[in-house]
Amino acid sequence: MRALRLPDWKSEPVFADVEEPVPGPGQVVVRIGGAGVCHSDLHLMHDFEAGQTPWGPPFTLGHENAGWVHALGQGVTGLETGQPVAVYGPWGCGSCRNCRLGIETYCENPAAAPAPGGGGGLGLDGGMADLMLVPHARHLVPLPDGLDPVVAAPLTDAGLTPYHAVRRSWPKLVPGSTAVVIGIGGLGHLALQIIKATTAARVIAVDAREDALAHARELGADLALPSGPETASRIKDATRGVGADVVIDCVGNDATLALGAASGRQLGDLTIVGIGGGSLGVSFFAVPYELSVQTTYWGSRPELIEVLDLAARGLLHTTVTRFAFDDAPEAYRMLARGELTGRAVVTPGNRA
Amino acid sequence: MRALRLPDWKSEPVFADVEEPVPGPGQVVVRIGGAGVCHSDLHLMHDFEAGQTPWGPPFTLGHENAGWVHALGQGVTGLETGQPVAVYGPWGCGSCRNCRLGIETYCENPAAAPAPGGGGGLGLDGGMADLMLVPHARHLVPLPDGLDPVVAAPLTDAGLTPYHAVRRSWPKLVPGSTAVVIGIGGLGHLALQIIKATTAARVIAVDAREDALAHARELGADLALPSGPETASRIKDATRGVGADVVIDCVGNDATLALGAASGRQLGDLTIVGIGGGSLGVSFFAVPYELSVQTTYWGSRPELIEVLDLAARGLLHTTVTRFAFDDAPEAYRMLARGELTGRAVVTPGNRA
Amino acid sequence: MRALRLPDWKSEPVFADVEEPVPGPGQVVVRIGGAGVCHSDLHLMHDFEAGQTPWGPPFTLGHENAGWVHALGQGVTGLETGQPVAVYGPWGCGSCRNCRLGIETYCENPAAAPAPGGGGGLGLDGGMADLMLVPHARHLVPLPDGLDPVVAAPLTDAGLTPYHAVRRSWPKLVPGSTAVVIGIGGLGHLALQIIKATTAARVIAVDAREDALAHARELGADLALPSGPETASRIKDATRGVGADVVIDCVGNDATLALGAASGRQLGDLTIVGIGGGSLGVSFFAVPYELSVQTTYWGSRPELIEVLDLAARGLLHTTVTRFAFDDAPEAYRMLARGELTGRAVVTPGNRA
Amino acid sequence: MRALRLPDWKSEPVFADVEEPVPGPGQVVVRIGGAGVCHSDLHLMHDFEAGQTPWGPPFTLGHENAGWVHALGQGVTGLETGQPVAVYGPWGCGSCRNCRLGIETYCENPAAAPAPGGGGGLGLDGGMADLMLVPHARHLVPLPDGLDPVVAAPLTDAGLTPYHAVRRSWPKLVPGSTAVVIGIGGLGHLALQIIKATTAARVIAVDAREDALAHARELGADLALPSGPETASRIKDATRGVGADVVIDCVGNDATLALGAASGRQLGDLTIVGIGGGSLGVSFFAVPYELSVQTTYWGSRPELIEVLDLAARGLLHTTVTRFAFDDAPEAYRMLARGELTGRAVVTPGNRA
Repeated sequence: MRALRLPDWKSEPVFADVEEPVPGPGQVVVRIGGAGVCHSDLHLMHDFEAGQTPWGPPFTLGHENAGWVHALGQGVTGLETGQPVAVYGPWGCGSCRNCRLGIETYCENPAAAPAPGGGGGLGLDGGMADLMLVPHARHLVPLPDGLDPVVAAPLTDAGLTPYHAVRRSWPKLVPGSTAVVIGIGGLGHLALQIIKATTAARVIAVDAREDALAHARELGADLALPSGPETASRIKDATRGVGADVVIDCVGNDATLALGAASGRQLGDLTIVGIGGGSLGVSFFAVPYELSVQTTYWGSRPELIEVLDLAARGLLHTTVTRFAFDDAPEAYRMLARGELTGRAVVTPGNRA
Repeated sequence: MRALRLPDWKSEPVFADVEEPVPGPGQVVVRIGGAGVCHSDLHLMHDFEAGQTPWGPPFTLGHENAGWVHALGQGVTGLETGQPVAVYGPWGCGSCRNCRLGIETYCENPAAAPAPGGGGGLGLDGGMADLMLVPHARHLVPLPDGLDPVVAAPLTDAGLTPYHAVRRSWPKLVPGSTAVVIGIGGLGHLALQIIKATTAARVIAVDAREDALAHARELGADLALPSGPETASRIKDATRGVGADVVIDCVGNDATLALGAASGRQLGDLTIVGIGGGSLGVSFFAVPYELSVQTTYWGSRPELIEVLDLAARGLLHTTVTRFAFDDAPEAYRMLARGELTGRAVVTPGNRA
Repeated sequence: MRALRLPDWKSEPVFADVEEPVPGPGQVVVRIGGAGVCHSDLHLMHDFEAGQTPWGPPFTLGHENAGWVHALGQGVTGLETGQPVAVYGPWGCGSCRNCRLGIETYCENPAAAPAPGGGGGLGLDGGMADLMLVPHARHLVPLPDGLDPVVAAPLTDAGLTPYHAVRRSWPKLVPGSTAVVIGIGGLGHLALQIIKATTAARVIAVDAREDALAHARELGADLALPSGPETASRIKDATRGVGADVVIDCVGNDATLALGAASGRQLGDLTIVGIGGGSLGVSFFAVPYELSVQTTYWGSRPELIEVLDLAARGLLHTTVTRFAFDDAPEAYRMLARGELTGRAVVTPGNRA
Repeated sequence: MRALRLPDWKSEPVFADVEEPVPGPGQVVVRIGGAGVCHSDLHLMHDFEAGQTPWGPPFTLGHENAGWVHALGQGVTGLETGQPVAVYGPWGCGSCRNCRLGIETYCENPAAAPAPGGGGGLGLDGGMADLMLVPHARHLVPLPDGLDPVVAAPLTDAGLTPYHAVRRSWPKLVPGSTAVVIGIGGLGHLALQIIKATTAARVIAVDAREDALAHARELGADLALPSGPETASRIKDATRGVGADVVIDCVGNDATLALGAASGRQLGDLTIVGIGGGSLGVSFFAVPYELSVQTTYWGSRPELIEVLDLAARGLLHTTVTRFAFDDAPEAYRMLARGELTGRAVVTPGNRA
């Protein structure tokens, strides 16, 4: 079958013919209905180099995947051929303290995991092909009724990541609280919707681009502020002087992290979602007391079920642009040039 | 000043002249903008008898109150004359383990509390008068901008009670979960709105009356079911056979409690809000494993702040019928005859 | 190989020759170092009847098991032959909402599970044999250093059950709180130790037998009370009149449940661990406000890891009487006659 | 009466005669049984300057206080003359969102608070005198039976601070987890005991001084490690390579914060307790994923009740050296020279 593969570090993806995968015991092969085109793939193409990771090219791209069960390996129960499924991306050992709670992102026994720190499309073969091998049945989540694999695919990463970030702050997002979302792009516009759908917190959106702020208002932001020297004080003004209970920084550069610290509340949360290369110096007097500063990375299997449920019920919308499989390289080029609106999803095994 | 008072147990309320209250140290006198007319008052009039409680008539009725600060006692800080406030109803000692967290409903040192188990309108003088004495400044919550005392008054009880009940179940009301609200009346229609506003759970409303079900649908219920022999199995059908994660029973008779147990999920919550006189036998095999069965009663001071915020932001609507002070007895008669739509609120000190 | 099997409902166990199990894909065969002798087995022998469960005899007894990995099926990673392991007993589907968090006790897709509501020794072949087939590698927990399979075996059930019960109440077992453990027998003496090891709560032990109370004192109970008409008031006296924050009822008859309700605190927990056939009527005025009444059943896989850690560190002791495999029937007879001290553990595959 | 007062910034404390305080409405005067001598006082003497805070000298020192109720202001209920009490130090407004939960450390309405950011001994008159004025009865916590005010005094700060820090991490301190305490001095040796008393976590103590490590071992540390270039890797080795779940840094300089980040676990907590002037750069790749980095400051009123309970039950020991009131200046000099063992407590109103 044909697959879009990364042939080497520091290279562009190419189509190649590969063997169709055959599921071993406990494994499942999925026919791919949608494979998301993600910024992380550009990093794989341009920024990684040999020796940096335990695995490497060549491999098939595509780490945001959904489709239909194509073939079941021996011993797999609870799934049927043809059933629509999403692929949970991080593939841990399944047995360590984190994996036992479905948090395979932080597998503590990577030597026993199929793909340390990530799975198909991030070192192993991913979903930019007609068929994809999934190493354990537990990595599949049945799609709720009415959810198209093309819509579901980007939710497995671009949806799951902000969901995980917001979920840790639920106890602080009580009525009367305020959340700030910095950066209303791919992840931020979903973070905003997730907060609105799952809590009664006020949401303040911050972005440098006026169209992004307009988008935030359409999605229900209670206040949308341009980023600038006045932003922190305007957030303070909008919160009776005490600051935001929760800041979700989907940009993550030095300036946005400083804004997060300046606008956060004592006892609040500042979560770094965006990989913008920034750093925040945390010390006794530089950040509000007991502001919990932490990064976040992807999410857990139980959380993926919850994200898909939100989307199936119409509470989480993502704009998707479909690309035929042949056009996948063009999708990556458009992504690199910033020409995409919403998320690009490639449909390699979609025969409808 | 004139006050509507309960002269004795087993009697009807009457207007009487009483002294205007003067605030002692730490106390506050509130001019009443709204005093809610509540079913509990009918119990006070008809069902209580001497010796049953540590306190008794005569006292001024009205335990759901909001208005404006009228006079401050010595040593009170942080409040200003004329400031709109809601009165937190349960008046505990302020020092015990529960009171220190603002849970004065369950004061553990009633000997040191102004009104054991309740406050003004429930033994001490309440809000059915121009002015009301509040024994501690901490029992006042400033009203958020735009919230009328007439709207705020019933929220201090009819809003706070279901809010407290729903809040304990937040950790179980994740996306993909289902809540059942039994009884879409005074408390139930607020419980429904509170779940919709603060979580992404599906809500199934259950009531015997078709107009109540129609109301539930208008308020956002995902499913509205008539109560009957099929109700439990229809809830199971609507939840892939596993039952509801949370049941809020705003009726509380034997039949609704049995429905709650039959339609609840293992690991779920069944909370008894309505005082319908029912009982549920909990045993190893009669209810789902780890279904937490418990009653609920009023709420805490921090929760009242949150309820008022929901209402001020338009996320919690209650239908209010205003009655002039002179018409308060008629409001009680209409309540007793079931002729009221929404909540009746009397406006004794409202000079607008 | 030889196995101790239940040949039929309403019968005594007998030794029989069965085929040695061979692991299929994803499965593991364990050589049994310890198989616990449990009261539930007596129920299987005497109280069950045909049609009551989806499965039935003949099967090998023994649902509390630990030993060493004997053979790995295809596709199993992360385990090695000879490695000491405990067997997690409830075998769910592995994919539903509960199973994904390791709570296989409440599997919501039993049609896809190896043993609905329980596993080996409870319908499928258990550990009263040299070798035992475990249907998924995830059901094995590696033993921490220094923990003998003979000691570990009863912890998988008799330890895990009270651990799960206590763990739900941790948020209420803060310093200054009081827990009551009713029934200081097989489960209760472990519940007591678990509370002492994992919290700073005071523990009051209640039992009808003076030797059980003496045992409770040795294990660190702060107070040990005989059960009787004065018990509830003595608990109130010992808790400044407010009652116990948490009651763990390891007996579960009408009298102990009534004691739990009478001695529990508002906002507390009453957890029914013992299957004593009792029932408690929960209603608005019959139990303290917001006392959460619920049953409990076994525990989750992550919790089993935690229980084993407690035992390996010497924080959880259980008295074990070893029985050679040939003497297993005698162990059951002694159990039935009440002649056992501590837990009987049979050692079928123990070649040391 | 005589008081030890700070006459000015950048000065040494002096004895002076001041008026005996008289309680206004809602206030209480306490006769001081114990007033702790704290490092923060040295900062007040040497490092503060005019304009830096909204308040200033002259004032009576002593912010760790316990004693007996001496006189009650009008309207105070629930306290009796002669009753032993501890003074909760941070005096907020009592009404804002934080104060309503007893978290007066983070009062959000300082304009309405007696002492923004701190209370008696930190700008208002403290406990280095026979009598001390406490502005609200709620700032007093009755001492549990058997707890001497001399022992209780330092617990209101040196005990409450590490207790608050540890308490936020309870959900992560499950059996099998590991906590690291850096710096086994005044706060650290209490943090260690608090973890041991309230959880079953393993504790690793880190300090540069061998006698401090010996002390840690006596107090129950499971492992005591000298600080040095190998410390982080030794902590990794002791935790199967995954790092510590929780790090409590009671030193807080650059080196200890870097050690915390290097030895912490993904999903863990790093809490900065010590004001050692250090800073930690938090960024996507510099610290473990989802390690929550935050400062901590003092604690809440409900937590003070819990700390006192731990001490009264013998679960929390602090070494106290008593100083007669006349010797208070010498106690400060010894503190400055590092000559004190344990906590110095001055006993101004102690007439026993």
